[in-house]
Order: sequence, then C-alpha cells, then structure tokens
Amino acid sequence: MLERYLPILQWLKVYDRNTLTSDLVAAMIVTIMLIPQSLAYALLAGLPAEVGLYASILPLVAYAIFGTSRTLAVGPVAVVSLMTAAAVGNLALQGTAEYLAAATALAFLSGGILILMGLLRLGILANFLSHPVISGFITASGIIIAASQLKHILGVDASGHNLLEILLALGSQLHQINLPTLIIGVGATAFLFWVRKQLKPLLMRTGMNARLADIIAKAGPVLAVAATTLATWGWDLQTAGVRVVGEVPSGLPGLQLPAFDAELWQQLLVSALLISVVGFVESVSVAQTLAAKRRQRIAPDQELIGLGSANIASAVSGGFPVTGGFSRSVVNFDAGAETPAAGAFTAVGIAIATLVLTPLIFFLPKATLAATIIVAVLSLVDLGALKRTWDFSRCDFAAMLATIVLTLVEGVELGIMAGVGLSILLHLYRTSKPHSAIVGRVPGTQHFRNVDRFKVETCKQIMTLRIDESLYFANARYLEDRVYDLVASHPDLRHLVLMCPAVNLIDASALESLEAINHRLHDSGVQFHLSEVKGPVMDSLKRSHFLDELSGQVFMSQYEAWEALGRLTGCNHREHAKASV
Amino acid sequence: MLERYLPILQWLKVYDRNTLTSDLVAAMIVTIMLIPQSLAYALLAGLPAEVGLYASILPLVAYAIFGTSRTLAVGPVAVVSLMTAAAVGNLALQGTAEYLAAATALAFLSGGILILMGLLRLGILANFLSHPVISGFITASGIIIAASQLKHILGVDASGHNLLEILLALGSQLHQINLPTLIIGVGATAFLFWVRKQLKPLLMRTGMNARLADIIAKAGPVLAVAATTLATWGWDLQTAGVRVVGEVPSGLPGLQLPAFDAELWQQLLVSALLISVVGFVESVSVAQTLAAKRRQRIAPDQELIGLGSANIASAVSGGFPVTGGFSRSVVNFDAGAETPAAGAFTAVGIAIATLVLTPLIFFLPKATLAATIIVAVLSLVDLGALKRTWDFSRCDFAAMLATIVLTLVEGVELGIMAGVGLSILLHLYRTSKPHSAIVGRVPGTQHFRNVDRFKVETCKQIMTLRIDESLYFANARYLEDRVYDLVASHPDLRHLVLMCPAVNLIDASALESLEAINHRLHDSGVQFHLSEVKGPVMDSLKRSHFLDELSGQVFMSQYEAWEALGRLTGCNHREHAKASV
Repeated sequence: MLERYLPILQWLKVYDRNTLTSDLVAAMIVTIMLIPQSLAYALLAGLPAEVGLYASILPLVAYAIFGTSRTLAVGPVAVVSLMTAAAVGNLALQGTAEYLAAATALAFLSGGILILMGLLRLGILANFLSHPVISGFITASGIIIAASQLKHILGVDASGHNLLEILLALGSQLHQINLPTLIIGVGATAFLFWVRKQLKPLLMRTGMNARLADIIAKAGPVLAVAATTLATWGWDLQTAGVRVVGEVPSGLPGLQLPAFDAELWQQLLVSALLISVVGFVESVSVAQTLAAKRRQRIAPDQELIGLGSANIASAVSGGFPVTGGFSRSVVNFDAGAETPAAGAFTAVGIAIATLVLTPLIFFLPKATLAATIIVAVLSLVDLGALKRTWDFSRCDFAAMLATIVLTLVEGVELGIMAGVGLSILLHLYRTSKPHSAIVGRVPGTQHFRNVDRFKVETCKQIMTLRIDESLYFANARYLEDRVYDLVASHPDLRHLVLMCPAVNLIDASALESLEAINHRLHDSGVQFHLSEVKGPVMDSLKRSHFLDELSGQVFMSQYEAWEALGRLTGCNHREHAKASV
Repeated sequence: MLERYLPILQWLKVYDRNTLTSDLVAAMIVTIMLIPQSLAYALLAGLPAEVGLYASILPLVAYAIFGTSRTLAVGPVAVVSLMTAAAVGNLALQGTAEYLAAATALAFLSGGILILMGLLRLGILANFLSHPVISGFITASGIIIAASQLKHILGVDASGHNLLEILLALGSQLHQINLPTLIIGVGATAFLFWVRKQLKPLLMRTGMNARLADIIAKAGPVLAVAATTLATWGWDLQTAGVRVVGEVPSGLPGLQLPAFDAELWQQLLVSALLISVVGFVESVSVAQTLAAKRRQRIAPDQELIGLGSANIASAVSGGFPVTGGFSRSVVNFDAGAETPAAGAFTAVGIAIATLVLTPLIFFLPKATLAATIIVAVLSLVDLGALKRTWDFSRCDFAAMLATIVLTLVEGVELGIMAGVGLSILLHLYRTSKPHSAIVGRVPGTQHFRNVDRFKVETCKQIMTLRIDESLYFANARYLEDRVYDLVASHPDLRHLVLMCPAVNLIDASALESLEAINHRLHDSGVQFHLSEVKGPVMDSLKRSHFLDELSGQVFMSQYEAWEALGRLTGCNHREHAKASV
C-alpha cells in the first residue's frame, strides 16, 4: 500500500553503485539540455527567465519520490507553457507581480487537480482527449508558439491571442526590425536546425557511436546560448538594441505556499483542469512508450499523483506548471537513466546552475531562446497527420481539423474544448446508425449471413435482424425505426428475431425501445424474439421486467431460433433469397 | 418527392365519406377536450387564456398538411408550456406586451429550428436525449408544474423559478388563502381525479362500451369548467375574491410575422433549441406508438417539418410553442381518427369556440384551470421509474436522478442540459473499461472461451485476448494498459493475439493505440496478431499503414491463429488451465 503511493520505496532498496553511475551520467546530460530549455519556456509563458530554473528543481525531486516512470524527465514543456501564457495573460499584465502570482497559483491548482484525480482513480478522464484532438492541438500549439516567438527573432514588440492577431501585429512592426537581433535570431535558428538534422550523421561518419552522437546533437542549444551570449557581451550588442535576459536573481527560490485567493482560483479553475489533462496525456504517452521498451510498467493513477506533487512543488518554490516532456525524457532514456534518481540528480544540477550561472546569462539574447523554442516546437507540428487521418476516417479528420482551426483562430482553451466536444458528438453520431443486416441460413449449415450478400434460406413469416453495435440511447430509436419499417413492409411476418452477437451493452433507453418494440409488434400480431444474447447483457435484462413481458423467446443460438420457429410456423417452403429485402 | 414533403397528398387522394365521418367524430371529441386544456396551458405559460385558443387553430392545420402521423393531436402541451414560461420569464414581465412577443418569437424560432433540422435530416439529434433523462425531466417538470398551480388553487400570489422558491413563496402566503377559491380548486381537483380513476369503470358497469366510457371520462374537465363557471357567475363569487379568466377578446387572431429582434432572438435561441428537441421527442414517441398499432409508419425527419410548420403557424397567429400531446393524441386515436384531417376539423371547432364561447368564459375561475393542469401533469410523474432504473443500471439511474434534482432545484433548462451531458459522459465511462478475457481452446473443438470460466487449452508462448467492445478513444488507452500488463507479467510470451469478434468500429485513437502496441510489443520481442476482425473494421484498417507494419498476421478465425502459431512455436505441451491468469 505504502509502496503504491511512494514508488521510491520500490527502487531505492535495490539501488546500487552501477545504477548510481548510470543515473549520474544521464542527469548530467539532461541538465545541460534543460538549462536553456527552462529559460526559454519561462519566456514563452511570459515569465522571468529564472522562474524556468525554479520549475526545474523541486518538481523533479517530487516526481522522483511519487512518480512511477523510471525515465520520465519532468519540467517546463512548450505546450503547457503556452497554455499558462494564455490562461494567465487573460488575468494580469506580463511582468507584474500579479502575473507571476497567477502562474504559481495555476501550478498549485493544477497540482491539486492532478492529485485529486489520482486519488479518485480518474486517470480515465484523459481518455476523453481523443488522439486526433491531441494531435491537432499540439500541431496548432506548435504553430502558435513558433509565431509568437518571431517577435524575439525580429527584435520587435508584437503580441496577440491567436495566430491572426500575432501575424498582423508582426506585420505592422516590420519596419522596426533590429538587424543585430535578426542576425542572432536567424543564425541561431539555422544553426539549431542544422544541428538537429545534420550533426548526428556527421559525427557518426567520424566513427562516433550513434547514441553519443545523438546526445551531443541534443546539446546544440547550449552551444548556441554560449556563443550568442559571448558575442553579445564581447561586442556590446545590448546597446545596439539586442534584448537580453538581463539581471537574474541568483540564489535558490524561497519556499512559500501561494496565497489563497478565491476569485483568482475560480478564474483559473478551467484552465488548470485543461492544463492538468493535457499535461497528463502528453506525459503518460512518453512514459508508457519508454517503459514498454524495457518491459516495465507505469501506473497511470499514481502518475497523476506524481505529476500533481511535481506541480505543487513547483508552486511552493515560485515556479509554474510542469509536466513530463517528450524530448528530454527520450534523452534521459537514451543516456541510460535507470531510476527516477536521475531526475533528482538533474534537480541538483539545475540548483547548482541557479547558484553559479545566473550572472553569466545576463547577456543571453532573448532571440537565442526564441530560436531554441522555434526549433523545438516545429518538430511537434505534424500536418501529415491530417492526410493520414483523412484517409482513415472522415469523422476523426473533422475533429482534428476543428481542433486545429479553433486553436489557431480562437485560442488554446476553446480549441481543445471544442475538439473534445466534437469528437464525443461524432462518436455518438457514428454509433447512432449501427450496421445491421437481415440474415438467412447458409444452406446445410448452422451459419447465418446477410441476405444481401449471400444466397441463404429465408422464410416469409420469420425474419432475423442482426444488429452490429451495442444498444444505447444514441441508437435506440434507430433500432425502433428499423424494426417498424420491416414490419410495415412485410405483411406476412409473424416472428421477428433480433440477433445480438455484437451487442455488448443495453442501456435503459435501449431497454425502453425493446419494450416498445415488443408491445407494438404484439399489437401487430408479430412475436418478438432475441438470439445470441451475451452473458453480461442477459444478466442486465434479467434485472428488468422485459423478459417477463417478451412475447417470444430468447434463443441461445440463432440456429435454435431458426429450428424452433420453423417448426412453429410450419415454414417448409424455404426460398433461396438474394437481395430480397 | 413532393409527396415526401407534403404528406397530405398521400391521404387526400383516397379520402372518402367513411373517412370523413370518422375524422369528424374524433375532431368533435378532441375539440371538447382541447378547449379547457388550451386555456389552462396558456395560463401555465404565463400568457392570456385566448393565446391557448390561438395556438390550437392554425398549428393544427399546418400539421395536417405537413405531418406524417395520421392521429397525432398537435397543440399546447404541459411540459413545453412550462419551458416557455421559464424561457420567457427570464426576459420579460408576465402580462406585458414584451412577454407575449417573446413567447411568439420563441414559437417562431422553435419552428425554424425544427424545419431546419428536418431539411438537414437531423432527427437523430433527438437521440441524445436518453430515456432516463427524458423520463426524469418529465417527472420533475410535472412536479414543478403542479406546485406552480397551487397558488391558483389557494387564491394567493406566489411564484418562483424552482421548486423550493415556489414552495417558500406559497408558505409565506398561507394566511391569505381565499376560501371560495380553495373550495372551487380543491373541489375541481377532487372531481377530476375521481373522473379519471372512477368514472370509466362506473359507466362500463352501466353497460356502456369501454371506448365510449373512456371518451366521456376524458371530457371531465369540460364539465368542471361549465359547473364552476356557472357557480361563479350565479353566486357572484368574483366579488368574493375568486379570480377568473376575465375579458377575452372575441374573434380570430390576426396574422402577422413576429418582428425581427436580433437581441431577443439570440437570448431565446438555446431555449428554442431545447423546446424543439424536447417537443419533438415527446411528439415522435406518441406518434410512433399510435402508428405501430395500425402497422402504419411515420417519417421522423418529415415530422420535424410538420411540427416546425405548426410552430411557425402558431407564431404568425399570435400563439406560443406547440407540439404533439400525449393524452389528446390517444383520445384522437381511440375516437377513430383516420387521417390528419381530424386535426384540421378540430381547428375549425376551436375557431368556432373562439368566435362564440369567449364571452362565456369570462367567469371561468383560474382555480378550475389549475385543477385540470394539476390532474393532467401528475399523471406524468413517474417516481417508480427511479426504482426500475436503479434495478436495471446504476449509470442510467445517476443520469435520471441528476436530471430530476437539477430540474427541480435549478430549473428546466439547466436540468435537461446537465442530464444530457451526464448521460453522454456516463456512456463514455461505461465503455471506457470494456469487458475483455484471456481465452483458450475448448479441448477438441474450434471454440475459444474465457480461461477463468472454462477448462481450456492454453500455451505459455501464445496468449489470446478477446475484447468485447468497439475500440475508440474512450477505451483505447485502457486496451494499451491491459496489453502491457499482460506482456510485463508473462516473460515467456512470444505471440499476442487480439480477438475482435465484438469490435464494430476502430477509430483513429484506437488505431494509434494498436500501432503503439504493435511497436512496443515488437521492442519486447512479442509478435502482435489479430483474429476475427469484422469486414467493415478490416476495410478501415486497410486504409491505414497499420497492416503493413503489423509484426504478426491477421487471422480470419481464432482457430486458424491457434493452429498457425502453435506450429510456429512448437507449442505441444498444452496445459489445461483453470483460472490461470
């Protein structure tokens, strides 16, 4: 029990020197990668750069204690930072104390929601985010994030709540472009794209092994940060208009509970819920992928508690919402991390950086950070998914497209809510007209097939309708329509059999419809039968009065129904039917 | 084509003298029943009494032209009148011209929405109102309506937006009770209950046939109206404080399009949508029940157009929202109506009443009308449904209870919206953890059964998981969890077969999960196979790259999979397993 809620107890007792070495190496590599990322994502969230560092210390320790993934790297990530900017930007002005307080409160609320969901075992809520919605949302977020960073690359002031506003604001500022900033920004972006695409093959051609080459390539942003910081300092580019990170308070953050502010918390509640669910879905997908590679398991409900405690830890140490990030987790895994201790060591690394390096990043150009963000998020943009989804299913495509368009045009929160709503409605719509078929007996066998597709035996007085879907409120009335149509168009009909081999569930609405069908068929002189009802469905029918009132019988197999009703009606002229109905 | 949109063309050409006689008789009986009901429901909607008459003339003619039910009786009904009162009461004061204008606009909007839904063939939207929600909503509405009429019975002023407010307001007014009103109100109520329960058996004991006895019993309200009106006039009870309907303009309503008012229409839009859907569901259920009794059919999408044109007709003739009513339709059917012409004749009857009778209803006490409403709506209250639904399914019970409680406490609109939302979420929740089973071969057969329930053959290296639900976003991740758990806990496993006989649909999220399972299983050295995939599901898989990447095969039957994989693994020590997993 204790081990379930404190997964650290499981791995700590078998921790040895080999594991320690592996974890330390991985932690070092992740630390180098995390420093520029944490600064950049704080900037993306509209927060001072040091907040990114604060969000990369205690949260990692908390996750190491409560998380179940061995290799997940927790911290600030792009999509959650964008959602933070959107949520907090509605309530306070960037750069004010209220803005920072709201971001911290958001992390606190989000942490509380995640822990609550974990304790109530509501990890299942994440299921309501269908894959097309998540995929479309991340693509659209990537596009918005990249667009929002262009101002730093160009050295202008421009902001907006959606893609159009951002692009229009940029357009109106084009005459104000700062050339040194542009050179740094474009140069850093080009360098990082080159590192991402070309450096690894290059290193491998020199004989380096693939994993090392990959890790070095991932350290590209640190190189860009160092080079541009040096250049800005050396050539005094700050006076030429290059904006830099500037004064960053050195020292570790103080610990403090966020002040309780009922009004603020209420305003942030929906945003916190969305951030929690989106962050959880992203994190759990990475964690599952990595765990499966080593035949390990993660516990989704405990993951909620792990991520929740990480967010609470972020909130009490002056940080903002965090979750498990994709790219850093992969690096952590590839670098050989074996336990969550690697995360704790990374936290130590960031803490040391916070103490030692903060004076050095005064001259770090914001354009460089923007470049690292742009390169990172553009890899999330997957417009090809639109084509693949279109090929697979029009409904899923509609949900994905709606999510992308609404996220771009109306913002992240409305985009994701509309996507979820639409995908639910489309699912209901899709199951509201279930596949069904009139079936007849394949001659000489006990098998029954669609009369439209096979030459099968039928009988005028007996009709069998096979329904290929669970019966519930969305399709209950459709079933009624279908049955009444059949009865109205077949005056000789005396027995209707509903064949239910694919009916996994009958809800109260469908029960009501079955009762109505039973009564109305009785009024028209037709007996109503069921066949091949599954065990759990039969159990639920037994809890109602339906079986007492059923004018016909329930047959275990369709063949039994065929034989019994055939005898009853004396149906001996079994005509071979082809597309007869 | 023309006949589809103008069903009148179908029945008019075979209309003969016999049909005419039947329709005329039915129309006469329904007219007698409709006069007090239309006055009462106008009162319930907060409108002057004559508006009820106006809503019972042209709408009936419009439905006769466009509707597909032979016997549906259209006009004001209790639940829709309550919803009208709730919607309009938020925007205007009762008794003002704005109130009447808003009610008329509501009918117009509702008519437009219904016709649009009909043209777009969106009758399916009504499916989202699950039966527990509709049933709970009607029960709660019945309780609220009955409570709201108590003030007329007591002769006091008291109103409120929900049950608690209504009861508190009544409680504070108890000292103001008007005795003559109370005597009329309680007397009429008791009389009507007696008529409903006792009169029919009594008449039948005198030798009257059942149908005629039933129809006479249904005319009870007319007797109550006549008697109390006479009493009020004769004893001048109006001066003793008995409130009466009062001056009613005589003559037919003028025809006039409602004025376009963008702000008002926008405020009424959601209410109009809810009224449309609720009215449609109620109406279509009655129409279907009656049609099935004579093996006739109704066309739900054309019904939308029929009801929509009835509401437009109501709006242009100074009426309020109407729909097909339960009790009057049953009377119409029992009285022998054969075509919608009966409705048109009823309209003529009401028109004559409007011209002739309006001076006579000056002295009709409001208490009598309240009594007819109370007796009518209490028959809609079905608290026993709570028990039946509880026995059948906890999820459906939760949706029903939530609808009842929220409708009583928060009002009709919030109640029904919360009910719909909850029933959708509960359905998703219910299918999010589908039934699944590890199966093995029943020795000597080609059948495969749950290893926990049957003595079956299994094999350490091969495992078959049967999943009993369509795979879609709500359960895609659950499937992944289930599979990874199996693989992590069975180190000898080399082949996993997913048996899909009950999978009717695979959406993009489930496809993504299957792809992830395939890749992760491949990484752990396990081949992934499918068996018994249905035709339509196979077709959709073929539109993706999944089958190209699948590490294993797709087997037509589970037996084929068993044989092929058995040969491949040389799995000859097939242990008999009982509850082995």
